[in-house]
Amino acid sequence: MPEKQVDGRRRVVIECVWPRIDSGQFPIKRVVGDTVVVEANVFADGHDQVACQLLYGRENDKPQSAPMKPIGNDRWRGEFPVLKVGRYEYTLEGWINRFATWRSDLIKRIAAGQDVDVDLLIGAQIIQDVAARTSGQDADLLRRSMRRLRDKTDKESRTNAALDEELLNAVQRYPESNLITEYEKRLPVVVDREKARFSTWYEIFPRSCSPEPGRHGTLLDCAARLPYIASMGFDVVYLPPIHPIGHTFRKGKNNSVSAQPDDVGSPWAIGSEEGGHTSIHPKLGKLEDFKKFMSSAKGQGLEVALDIAFQCTPDHPYVKQHPGWFRTRPDGTIQYAENPPKKYQDIFPLDFESSEWQALWTELKEVVLFWIRQGVRIFRVDNPHTKPFAFWQWFIGDIKEQYPDVLFLAEAFTRPHVMYRLAKIGFSQSYTYFAWRNTKQELTDYFTELTSTKVREFFRPNLWPNTPDILPEFLQVGGRPAFMIRYILAATLGASCGIYGPAFELCENTPYEQGSEEYLTSEKYELKHRDLDAPWSLKDFIARINRIRKQNPALQSDRNLRFHNIDNPSLICYSKATDDLSNIIMVVVNLDSFHAQTGWVDLDLNSLGLDPAHAFQVHDLLGEGRYLWQGARNYVELIPESLPAHILHVRRWVRKETDFDYYL
Amino acid sequence: MPEKQVDGRRRVVIECVWPRIDSGQFPIKRVVGDTVVVEANVFADGHDQVACQLLYGRENDKPQSAPMKPIGNDRWRGEFPVLKVGRYEYTLEGWINRFATWRSDLIKRIAAGQDVDVDLLIGAQIIQDVAARTSGQDADLLRRSMRRLRDKTDKESRTNAALDEELLNAVQRYPESNLITEYEKRLPVVVDREKARFSTWYEIFPRSCSPEPGRHGTLLDCAARLPYIASMGFDVVYLPPIHPIGHTFRKGKNNSVSAQPDDVGSPWAIGSEEGGHTSIHPKLGKLEDFKKFMSSAKGQGLEVALDIAFQCTPDHPYVKQHPGWFRTRPDGTIQYAENPPKKYQDIFPLDFESSEWQALWTELKEVVLFWIRQGVRIFRVDNPHTKPFAFWQWFIGDIKEQYPDVLFLAEAFTRPHVMYRLAKIGFSQSYTYFAWRNTKQELTDYFTELTSTKVREFFRPNLWPNTPDILPEFLQVGGRPAFMIRYILAATLGASCGIYGPAFELCENTPYEQGSEEYLTSEKYELKHRDLDAPWSLKDFIARINRIRKQNPALQSDRNLRFHNIDNPSLICYSKATDDLSNIIMVVVNLDSFHAQTGWVDLDLNSLGLDPAHAFQVHDLLGEGRYLWQGARNYVELIPESLPAHILHVRRWVRKETDFDYYL
Repeated sequence: MPEKQVDGRRRVVIECVWPRIDSGQFPIKRVVGDTVVVEANVFADGHDQVACQLLYGRENDKPQSAPMKPIGNDRWRGEFPVLKVGRYEYTLEGWINRFATWRSDLIKRIAAGQDVDVDLLIGAQIIQDVAARTSGQDADLLRRSMRRLRDKTDKESRTNAALDEELLNAVQRYPESNLITEYEKRLPVVVDREKARFSTWYEIFPRSCSPEPGRHGTLLDCAARLPYIASMGFDVVYLPPIHPIGHTFRKGKNNSVSAQPDDVGSPWAIGSEEGGHTSIHPKLGKLEDFKKFMSSAKGQGLEVALDIAFQCTPDHPYVKQHPGWFRTRPDGTIQYAENPPKKYQDIFPLDFESSEWQALWTELKEVVLFWIRQGVRIFRVDNPHTKPFAFWQWFIGDIKEQYPDVLFLAEAFTRPHVMYRLAKIGFSQSYTYFAWRNTKQELTDYFTELTSTKVREFFRPNLWPNTPDILPEFLQVGGRPAFMIRYILAATLGASCGIYGPAFELCENTPYEQGSEEYLTSEKYELKHRDLDAPWSLKDFIARINRIRKQNPALQSDRNLRFHNIDNPSLICYSKATDDLSNIIMVVVNLDSFHAQTGWVDLDLNSLGLDPAHAFQVHDLLGEGRYLWQGARNYVELIPESLPAHILHVRRWVRKETDFDYYL
Repeated sequence: MPEKQVDGRRRVVIECVWPRIDSGQFPIKRVVGDTVVVEANVFADGHDQVACQLLYGRENDKPQSAPMKPIGNDRWRGEFPVLKVGRYEYTLEGWINRFATWRSDLIKRIAAGQDVDVDLLIGAQIIQDVAARTSGQDADLLRRSMRRLRDKTDKESRTNAALDEELLNAVQRYPESNLITEYEKRLPVVVDREKARFSTWYEIFPRSCSPEPGRHGTLLDCAARLPYIASMGFDVVYLPPIHPIGHTFRKGKNNSVSAQPDDVGSPWAIGSEEGGHTSIHPKLGKLEDFKKFMSSAKGQGLEVALDIAFQCTPDHPYVKQHPGWFRTRPDGTIQYAENPPKKYQDIFPLDFESSEWQALWTELKEVVLFWIRQGVRIFRVDNPHTKPFAFWQWFIGDIKEQYPDVLFLAEAFTRPHVMYRLAKIGFSQSYTYFAWRNTKQELTDYFTELTSTKVREFFRPNLWPNTPDILPEFLQVGGRPAFMIRYILAATLGASCGIYGPAFELCENTPYEQGSEEYLTSEKYELKHRDLDAPWSLKDFIARINRIRKQNPALQSDRNLRFHNIDNPSLICYSKATDDLSNIIMVVVNLDSFHAQTGWVDLDLNSLGLDPAHAFQVHDLLGEGRYLWQGARNYVELIPESLPAHILHVRRWVRKETDFDYYL
């Protein structure tokens, strides 16, 4: 016997719901104000009409419904808005639309001139069934209609009543609930604030911000630098760790194993007698100074991002307080970091396999909660791929439950599945392989993967042309045009991007040695003093590009990236547009930092709503040129020293009802 | 606090497991003797080595394990055999391979000349932990090794012991079970007998098998036809319904609404006073005759497939016995089938929304169990898409639990998602859109979807160039060559195919009217008498092709289909090969039944293991020609009247160790 508890009369099937990450195990990501578009296959056996709707809402709230419409081939589509930060859920339900099926059959019967007497009685019966589970106004309407359908005295009134639109709408509000198919999962959405999608980062070492050469800079010196950073149009200032630095096995200049007494050590070597992850390096200042820094940043329209680097020097207070959080070697010493045969004796990794793992997890969360209480809402997480995924999932989930506006950037430069997993389990943004994608093919393949596949639902790329660890070869050899090219690419391919400054805008490009991506005399191990007004500085150029980003919503999203053909392998062409095509940016970049390049673009006009029969104006927001283009093929010429790229604002020709032609 | 019950130290992640249909909701399909190849992303944080294994077995059996190996980019692959019909399950588990990590680090340390004293003690501790959960021989080996690693007197013996392969293997047999990550689902497999994958069907109306014109044929007449069918190389003989036919509103010749007294009616109009779905039409014979028919078929190497058409005429015994299984109209009559404004008053559909649905389901299963008890093991299901999916899922699942060798062919010609859903919920084979795929582009697109996407895991196509309902336009207009072309395509594109005979081999091609796919004087409504020895019969041609199918394992599977370029839109070229390339068949078909066509193929040599530097022989199994080909480009010329296709057996040139060159 078929099981009693399953109602075998539920005939509607819901499958292939999209978006849905790993069978619904992980949330998709959105920001406040976004719309979530949901599609699914919804169908039943036979020829009856089906109906379905979206159910959605904030987690734990009573769900709301939104209509779904068929888009062909049994696929349905609906959407709902996400208006607040936090977690949402969505699911679907479908049912046989018995009344609509009957109604559309009736229309065919009437058209064929058939006697519909019995059919009207069938319709009345359906209405009666619905009325039985209805009350109020709808119930009145239904009962009135039912009586009219059964009233054989007035034939015309009967069919009019049957086909009444208001009746159709009323009946459809009350599907037979025991025969509704509910999709088996509630699919999660994490909704972040807008900065998760669109942000422009500047990394700076506060200790190098002193106006006097040789003096250790402070947080207050760094605060004085904030107007300079803000003037370039950045909106996040990210500080490497600001905690006390260990002295045991401290690294010297250029990462030498024997430090000199005046060597300052690496900020990532966290912990000394002066404190650990919730302390501030005494030479940077006190907690009050940090608060002043936070307030200055706010005044400049900048948010502060701190570094989370969960590792300790041998001098970190945890080592004495919680020896169980580290691994002990058989000789009684604590296990230092290793990549055999290399040894990193200045670092003790935390042991996530410790039997005290729960206390460790809790303490690490407390560290971040401490900084959250100081007002910090963005964290850049150092090497998250060397701590367990389960830890991060719990850690980020727990923190965002209390503080849903907190954002985490994953600094994982590792294998693709690992990077994607970190994004799935909760990181709000992620570093990417951008620093090593230089050719047209490399950029096209990689950014197609990031923005046009399911990856875009959970992985938000943040594009960095350099970091303190990464001086790519392209920058080492390409001179100032190389820096321009790479920033244009970062800032227009990615809605989020960042630079490590002032090394970047000053075009610092000397590697530690040939074949190395480390900087010579890296700021990671020594103080730096720089002339920010050097004539070759890119600060105005960067400011201009960041202004373009702010003024053009098309550049503030990643989902809308589209590559266009161009007949020169050294030139790349792509566009970004808002969904309504009210803002279209077309970018053409010369990827060759040494030579002028010319070529013909071959635009996908249709995707941009461009009419091949009319010219359209492109306005170069970078070089200020204005050109009239027409059709798919148009000529470009880019000279790396002066203008390595066009960032074109496309002004579409639009015919309005007034028949007055103008450019949008 | 992180929850106690979840062990946060489980560091291995398992994701993107393949194959897996709809999050594991539905089984993949295999046949006995197949191998299931499983892939997954398996990785952990950090740099430790991970290990993983497949767990598999028959449902409810204790699972066995099979190794998985990394194939790059954190992807792992393993496989297991399925040796019996029934349901299997598989899942995966992964863990940190602590000992292997330690061992490979040790090798690097030794190579760098480091002191490994403490490292050997660390290794000894790992071994000790493993030994604690071990007994027997392995425990002895582990304890012995542990002591040697700790014995500082003999340095060389210590490192030899550490690197011992046997030790490595022993340790790896005992992962720390509380830190093993188990994949969250057991993924199902349905294993069928081989015929599910490879079958050649012949549909015949027994009532047309009488040797005397005008006499109603019997099952015994049909039994006498079996040697003819077997001689063409078919292995399944499928009979339209053999049950009593209703007389109320019986359809006459050419589907006319008014039958003459001697009209025989449609076999799909099931049920009369003489019985219903478990009865045999008196004019066809008795149950004993059916048993004789079954036995004759067996003697000819043919399996019998019966039709399941769950619908009733007004005369069916169910109508009186179970009026609740039908829908009643407000005027008290029973609802007949309709496609408004068309009415099919000779058919009462069963009402699957009846409150008596459970009794109905049970009875329908009993019908099939009745025929199973008569020895039938294959059923062709009429219009399954007009009955609920939930019904079929239960029905097929329940029957196959008792009789796992039973096969069901879904006769659903409807929208793609509906057809695929029927396959997912249990149908062993499915009719396809093949009858309406004629051009190179149509065939390439459709068969790429069926054989190279996930569809191939659950949908087994069965290709029919004609059925009693479908006489495609291509056959109506293309003459005898059209029938040859379509059978070649069906028999070489699909591992399973079938024809409705003798209409097919006799090239019957007159439609009811222009634009119709119905046969004129369709056998569905009248008896037929035919001359099987007509000179234009394709029986020998079909026999030859079916012999080629039997002799070449490459043609017995669908997963191995690959299309090759050919520079003429009227020519199509594709190959099928066994996994080990020991059998390769290359097919080139002229899709134009009117004109000779010539062209140059452009073969994907690499996929076939063909060396571009050596000639290879192709032997046309159809036309008996033999050709020496070399490289990708080779010439073909096909004349529809004589030889509309090549079915080439490719004989690869293989160099053996003896350096004696020969063709495989």
